[in-house]
Amino acid sequence: MAVTTWPTGSALGYGGDYNPEQWPRETWDADVALMAEAGVNFVSVGIFSWAMLEPREGEHDFAWLDELLDLLHSRGIMVDLATPTAAPPAWFFATYPEARVVTRDGVPMGPGSRGAASPSHPAYQRAARDIASRIAERYADHPAVVMWHVHNEYGAPVGEDFSEAALTAWRIWLRQRYGTLDGLNAAWGTKFWGQVYGEWEHVMLPGPTPSVRNQAQVLDFARFTDHQLRALFVAERDAIRRYSDKPVTTNFMANECPTTDLWAWAREVDVVSNDHYLTAADPRAHVGLALAADLTRSVAGGRPWILMEHSSSGVNWQPRNIAKRPGEMARNSLSHVARGADVVGFFQWRASRVGAEKFHSAMLPHAGTDSRVWREVVDLGAHVGALAPVQGSTVRADVALLWDTESHWAQDQEWRPSVDLTHRERTRAYYERLWRDGVTTDFAHPEADLSGYRLVVAPASYLLTAAAAANLTRYVEAGGTLVVSCFSAVVDEHDAVHAGGFAAPLRDVLGVRVQEFLPLREAESTKVAWSGSAESAGRTLAASVWHEHVTPVGAETVATHLDGPAAGMPAVTRNAHGAGHAWYVATVLDVTELATVLGDVYADAGVTPSGLAEDLEVVVRRADDADYTFAINHTDSPAVVPGVTGTALGDGTDVGPDLTVPAGDVVVVRTPATPGGDPAS
Amino acid sequence: MAVTTWPTGSALGYGGDYNPEQWPRETWDADVALMAEAGVNFVSVGIFSWAMLEPREGEHDFAWLDELLDLLHSRGIMVDLATPTAAPPAWFFATYPEARVVTRDGVPMGPGSRGAASPSHPAYQRAARDIASRIAERYADHPAVVMWHVHNEYGAPVGEDFSEAALTAWRIWLRQRYGTLDGLNAAWGTKFWGQVYGEWEHVMLPGPTPSVRNQAQVLDFARFTDHQLRALFVAERDAIRRYSDKPVTTNFMANECPTTDLWAWAREVDVVSNDHYLTAADPRAHVGLALAADLTRSVAGGRPWILMEHSSSGVNWQPRNIAKRPGEMARNSLSHVARGADVVGFFQWRASRVGAEKFHSAMLPHAGTDSRVWREVVDLGAHVGALAPVQGSTVRADVALLWDTESHWAQDQEWRPSVDLTHRERTRAYYERLWRDGVTTDFAHPEADLSGYRLVVAPASYLLTAAAAANLTRYVEAGGTLVVSCFSAVVDEHDAVHAGGFAAPLRDVLGVRVQEFLPLREAESTKVAWSGSAESAGRTLAASVWHEHVTPVGAETVATHLDGPAAGMPAVTRNAHGAGHAWYVATVLDVTELATVLGDVYADAGVTPSGLAEDLEVVVRRADDADYTFAINHTDSPAVVPGVTGTALGDGTDVGPDLTVPAGDVVVVRTPATPGGDPAS
Amino acid sequence: MAVTTWPTGSALGYGGDYNPEQWPRETWDADVALMAEAGVNFVSVGIFSWAMLEPREGEHDFAWLDELLDLLHSRGIMVDLATPTAAPPAWFFATYPEARVVTRDGVPMGPGSRGAASPSHPAYQRAARDIASRIAERYADHPAVVMWHVHNEYGAPVGEDFSEAALTAWRIWLRQRYGTLDGLNAAWGTKFWGQVYGEWEHVMLPGPTPSVRNQAQVLDFARFTDHQLRALFVAERDAIRRYSDKPVTTNFMANECPTTDLWAWAREVDVVSNDHYLTAADPRAHVGLALAADLTRSVAGGRPWILMEHSSSGVNWQPRNIAKRPGEMARNSLSHVARGADVVGFFQWRASRVGAEKFHSAMLPHAGTDSRVWREVVDLGAHVGALAPVQGSTVRADVALLWDTESHWAQDQEWRPSVDLTHRERTRAYYERLWRDGVTTDFAHPEADLSGYRLVVAPASYLLTAAAAANLTRYVEAGGTLVVSCFSAVVDEHDAVHAGGFAAPLRDVLGVRVQEFLPLREAESTKVAWSGSAESAGRTLAASVWHEHVTPVGAETVATHLDGPAAGMPAVTRNAHGAGHAWYVATVLDVTELATVLGDVYADAGVTPSGLAEDLEVVVRRADDADYTFAINHTDSPAVVPGVTGTALGDGTDVGPDLTVPAGDVVVVRTPATPGGDPAS
Repeated sequence: MAVTTWPTGSALGYGGDYNPEQWPRETWDADVALMAEAGVNFVSVGIFSWAMLEPREGEHDFAWLDELLDLLHSRGIMVDLATPTAAPPAWFFATYPEARVVTRDGVPMGPGSRGAASPSHPAYQRAARDIASRIAERYADHPAVVMWHVHNEYGAPVGEDFSEAALTAWRIWLRQRYGTLDGLNAAWGTKFWGQVYGEWEHVMLPGPTPSVRNQAQVLDFARFTDHQLRALFVAERDAIRRYSDKPVTTNFMANECPTTDLWAWAREVDVVSNDHYLTAADPRAHVGLALAADLTRSVAGGRPWILMEHSSSGVNWQPRNIAKRPGEMARNSLSHVARGADVVGFFQWRASRVGAEKFHSAMLPHAGTDSRVWREVVDLGAHVGALAPVQGSTVRADVALLWDTESHWAQDQEWRPSVDLTHRERTRAYYERLWRDGVTTDFAHPEADLSGYRLVVAPASYLLTAAAAANLTRYVEAGGTLVVSCFSAVVDEHDAVHAGGFAAPLRDVLGVRVQEFLPLREAESTKVAWSGSAESAGRTLAASVWHEHVTPVGAETVATHLDGPAAGMPAVTRNAHGAGHAWYVATVLDVTELATVLGDVYADAGVTPSGLAEDLEVVVRRADDADYTFAINHTDSPAVVPGVTGTALGDGTDVGPDLTVPAGDVVVVRTPATPGGDPAS
Repeated sequence: MAVTTWPTGSALGYGGDYNPEQWPRETWDADVALMAEAGVNFVSVGIFSWAMLEPREGEHDFAWLDELLDLLHSRGIMVDLATPTAAPPAWFFATYPEARVVTRDGVPMGPGSRGAASPSHPAYQRAARDIASRIAERYADHPAVVMWHVHNEYGAPVGEDFSEAALTAWRIWLRQRYGTLDGLNAAWGTKFWGQVYGEWEHVMLPGPTPSVRNQAQVLDFARFTDHQLRALFVAERDAIRRYSDKPVTTNFMANECPTTDLWAWAREVDVVSNDHYLTAADPRAHVGLALAADLTRSVAGGRPWILMEHSSSGVNWQPRNIAKRPGEMARNSLSHVARGADVVGFFQWRASRVGAEKFHSAMLPHAGTDSRVWREVVDLGAHVGALAPVQGSTVRADVALLWDTESHWAQDQEWRPSVDLTHRERTRAYYERLWRDGVTTDFAHPEADLSGYRLVVAPASYLLTAAAAANLTRYVEAGGTLVVSCFSAVVDEHDAVHAGGFAAPLRDVLGVRVQEFLPLREAESTKVAWSGSAESAGRTLAASVWHEHVTPVGAETVATHLDGPAAGMPAVTRNAHGAGHAWYVATVLDVTELATVLGDVYADAGVTPSGLAEDLEVVVRRADDADYTFAINHTDSPAVVPGVTGTALGDGTDVGPDLTVPAGDVVVVRTPATPGGDPAS
Repeated sequence: MAVTTWPTGSALGYGGDYNPEQWPRETWDADVALMAEAGVNFVSVGIFSWAMLEPREGEHDFAWLDELLDLLHSRGIMVDLATPTAAPPAWFFATYPEARVVTRDGVPMGPGSRGAASPSHPAYQRAARDIASRIAERYADHPAVVMWHVHNEYGAPVGEDFSEAALTAWRIWLRQRYGTLDGLNAAWGTKFWGQVYGEWEHVMLPGPTPSVRNQAQVLDFARFTDHQLRALFVAERDAIRRYSDKPVTTNFMANECPTTDLWAWAREVDVVSNDHYLTAADPRAHVGLALAADLTRSVAGGRPWILMEHSSSGVNWQPRNIAKRPGEMARNSLSHVARGADVVGFFQWRASRVGAEKFHSAMLPHAGTDSRVWREVVDLGAHVGALAPVQGSTVRADVALLWDTESHWAQDQEWRPSVDLTHRERTRAYYERLWRDGVTTDFAHPEADLSGYRLVVAPASYLLTAAAAANLTRYVEAGGTLVVSCFSAVVDEHDAVHAGGFAAPLRDVLGVRVQEFLPLREAESTKVAWSGSAESAGRTLAASVWHEHVTPVGAETVATHLDGPAAGMPAVTRNAHGAGHAWYVATVLDVTELATVLGDVYADAGVTPSGLAEDLEVVVRRADDADYTFAINHTDSPAVVPGVTGTALGDGTDVGPDLTVPAGDVVVVRTPATPGGDPAS
């Protein structure tokens, strides 16, 4: 279903998870009064309320929720009403112990924490559908409800399941996928190590084994796990749909939880939602935030999306939960908005005195309203309120990074050439290089239409299907610029090495053969001689982790290893192919060293870095009638964005011809569109 | 039962665990002869002898023990006779496999090692009571037996138990604790994450779960575990009591094993006993020893206690088992005596050639009597013999550190703001500061009467009840000096954040509000500007791990953060409240930096540091007629204690007006009491 | 059975594992053509083919194997035909789930990987015997088959098994070993911790326990595990023997897998085979290779052996799989030959596109024949072909290192004095010292006849039986030189400390008493004053990990600790005993510092170091009519071996009087024997 009206109307949404069942009734009145003070217009309700809504199996109590929704509606607060299926009640586990999720080692996971039951167990499937139906039936026409929030963060903490129910479902899923055992045996390469299956009933889950498991089987198990979770979502969504045509969403975790394949999930939701929390140990966590936001926008097909949860300050589940510095919450929130979010949501409205997340920050902290956090929450609410004109505008990118969860699943398995070369690290390194260069970036699936991009970067395409390789080849032939990182195009969709050897499907477009992988020892560092464009030629770059024995078959060598196992061999190559160019980076360069490579790549692609101060983040959202320039200053000094003219949303001051952003601050400038022209040019 | 006569009479006890069943009969005669040579007058017998005393269920063999006790008695060696219930025989596990302890992951623990069966299983409870009764009945009047030793080191290696028997007992315990499910649901905050229980039968042990467990439930499980172990002790004690009124003890592990709440245990024993082993990796392990000894004395209510086990040299269960240096055993032993021990015991008399502890040192090592260890054991025996006058004297302290095992249980759980801030580390840091300053210290429960102390230090009061907070407030009002470390008074007895926010119950006495916790990143260090007393003002201190956003509401700021997340905010505050003062240290300062803080605190409290050389440990035991000054020189040079006049116990030399302690040596000086005055002044 | 004719006749063997069932039929023809090109004359077939040979229980399909063997024979390629019992088919696990191996925690290991079923389960024993019989019956007379290859790498990944079948077999094995429970109780020292057994049915496997397990029991469990695996081998071997008298082997893993006691295994095979893979993280992995090769030759009794598997370049199962540098494969292969291998085999012929080992290198890599690896494989094949005269010649050593797997099993258990002192590290250190000094070394069991050696080194004899101690004592009395490293002769065969204390059985020969072990703290380093021979006296050596309190009782002190816990005590001693000398090294010296010690030891022993450049490896194989000098240059510069005259095998050039070996290269020189004399002298 396409969403024609944004759930929060012409305003941006502002609010968070609201769990008033934890509090006495009088607190509810205080809450809604404070919500008004903070500009909250949107809350998510009922996410963990199953035990309160169905205290015993088949006995329901909706009175408190009736009262709550009426109260919220009376104050004009819109509700994203949840199905509570992420937290089955204690009676469920007691009544259906066999529906518990089982670990790989055979340990059943009990209640007393959080997390769903077995996605494959009929009792859970039935119970989840039932409670979702009852909620939808009762509240389909409640005027407070503007959206449905199914479950919570599918894929964490429950993903893989080794229960008997999972085994049964697994065999059914495999039969549907492969039709015959011959198909399965071929796909899994079972002739290796004598694993051939002669009966469907002999096929097991990839449980405990003496040595490493069949990697194609494990890859399929990741697909199966994703499928089972998605089937749960679809079942609840369809149960709701019988009663309501309001949009249905579920909150993703973008790149932070690889259990789910977001390209597939995004096709099933009406509006894409995402939760994002900073990685506290990362001093540049705001770059990770931008990556997550760009990925969320990309899986949403470029349409606006909802930041369902983030935090006002520190979280509680990391080893050291760093609180946000003054201004950081606003920078985080508005970076999400700059990258396409039209709702700014928090976990949660009021800090819980009890339970597992008592040290998680909230909009209303334990310290109450006389606190830094509350004051910043109120200020941010006002700013978000002033950004209403932004609603519905979009972000345009000239560059795409390839993102394929299946490749992540495949690369992260055991028995790869080096544990140091990871999908996550390479993706972040290339993304951060683009971010530092001020180049706004989309993510794209390797088999997607890439023709709209000037530059496509493949940072971690270990698994690359023949179709995807052909797609990339066509893209370059048509004039595109492609950068492929090392250890790419190694296996097909069954984790089988491509016929012809490593990277064989990209041989023509890259103009290289990859004979052998040459991993480095731990912490080893080597040198690379760069001979690219006039500006950068002669530089020496530091490489680590990985070399390859690359033989050019048409490509020019742009950088050469000076030492290490590939001494004398190409480290970076460039190949003219059709109307475009394809680069191969056969080693690991960190985000600093990648500047040299990308500098020359941009020239091929016609991409212009922003030239702004480092950590001055600028993103433009475009509407028909105006551009909205978001300038987010992550530094401790004022910074200037040249060539921005217009009006600052919020205080309404005139800006131009340059925009000065105070230290740590965010300014959003509206620039009216020039009729018929690109407003930003 | 109050002990009116000390088990070893008017002498100090000296000896150890004696396990002659491991050796042929002729070795017993050699043993008792060597015991005489070493001055041994006290041994613990039978701790692991169940399988020898009851080789088959219901078939008992006491003949060897009869013979042994007679032999020991014939040489005048007093016996601490054990119940052997820490090591059920193989037949027990074979007959009652369901009585095995089960791990959280569901794995039953078998025999072939050491460790009791399930504390909650009726078969084990019955068998333990039975063997204790039989031993008590048989030996109640044996003249060798002066004391009963129940079990061994309750809480290790067996503590938590996830067996079916534990589950049954858990539900009973919870019903008794909470009466109603409403009470349990409120205490555990089950409305968070939808964990509400509708039936007692739905309540589970805190077993494996997909995400973090309910922390209030886990805290109660720690209480339950402690309770079940203590109930075992009480049952054995009462079984013995039917036959004997000799004192009953069990050997604690003081601060080294947080499974048991020693305040509660100490109420159940007639004499407090403790086992202590140095932490080999700690180059200042003698400070940890002093901490354990002071804690043991404190839970004993200041009365003499028994050092049941320590080691003559290295142990065997640490990664690197450092042997004691010459003289170190004597320093260790006499530090225990200085801090209240009236028995010096070892594990064990003779080193075992077989079994798990063959590399554990003993009084009689594998090398035999021609060895350093044996010679030092004989020398120490003579010294302990000369210390008989000390028996029954006590230690007086002006300072108390708060110690609450429940707070340890609560703080050490998952999902706290920082893994770097631990109960153990902060307690040791504050204790060591006092130790280095030569300030003798008690430990006290936060709800205890503190009126006798000049200074109370709360190094790790994460869990602090409202009653305890009121107690501390009253203490300061009455003129006391209080120091509270960061992350204190955060939660109540149910691990629920106090209403009003962090540290709210101490707001009045401390004069501060704590808005937010600001943990630092790993290994991060920051600076603090100290502006305390004239002597120390202007210093810059190093802080780490933790800052807080503190707002004074009455307190003066004594130190201010210069950088880091709390830059410009108070790091240390001081509040005049009633007739006293309360300090708040809102960050982590190491033992060196704490010197500056405590220096000013002592001035408020009227506490005077000793001013002695570092690592010259001096403690005074006081009797009605004399003081006994223990001077323990941990350094490699002679050291002087000024103002000590009297007679050295042992060699009888006259001392005064100053006492010189040779390098690495221990001198105990008897100073007769001045009638009506404080003998030490 | 003694092998009278070498399986590959008068030629050396060259080839590898061949798994054509993974490939279409047309690939087979390409394979045999390429084998011819590479000089391959020997392949191992069918190692993981059970599921292909017996697709359903009792249904066999030998047609493909018939065709394959005929094809290989038609090209003159000899076949080492395997029994496929290391990889039971999926149907086996489905039909006999109770035959799965169970982990210590009780988790059964399923299929979908690799690894046998429970060695103790009758169903697996029966099925393995059956398939071995059928293969032997069918192919006994096939002309391609020259040898039988039973199973694969016994001991990994399946070794310890805690299944019910294992428990049953364990009790039987213990009854046979001990006869009575009294015997078992005495051997296991069960009176310690009250573990005495009163019924055989009460004896359990050493499964999960609350504290550390009985170490004698764990040691016996290692013996039992080894025994059960070996019984599997013997059963298959005997099944084959009913049909064929061709030699039977199984591939060992030398020092890399301590599950099996190779001295015992070598007595059961007709030809010793070994697999060896470099430790990628070790920059001197070629020394580990030499150690493995010398150990393999030694367990083979000095007879030629088969290098069944090694790799052409990197492997895939280490954290970072370092590819071999150009020339490294040839150096590795020929170092094995130099040390006695008469077959050079690889895993595997053709790289697998699918399955767990797709990133393992092969003779024919993914990159095909236009690749560095293939070219080097072809070159090496030619070189190996030219080495045919070497076949059957042997290696002579003047030095023996003691190697006793039981000591390894015992030392590596928990609760030893220091985790830093390991069997593996000390063995490698002493071995590497000898290697660097150019001293060819055998390995010997401590109870073996040592009279043929000038020098015996005991680097890690923690467990040393009284018989072995007597053997070493006699060896020295008769004029031998002995070096014993620290922590030796500590326990007997039951892990019981020797009566009389540590090292007591060696007291006479070493002339020292060991009072106490004095481990160092982590990373601590101390100094030792060396006062040995005139040449080296006055040196200061660095020691770490371990000191001992050593008292000379006859020995002279050659080195003294300058600091640390043993300051002033002997670090190294030398004792004249009978006609020989015995050295004791009571601390840990690294391979560099050992040079000083061994320098003086060589003088006692009459052993002469080679004096060659470091990393120039020279080994001589001797035949009746000639010596074959293998010179392997691991450096990047040419190197000279003086005094080598003869003809280079391969290119046939004349060599002499000195041999120059190009950088990274290998030269093998044939020197005809002087009639009646030692050809090398």
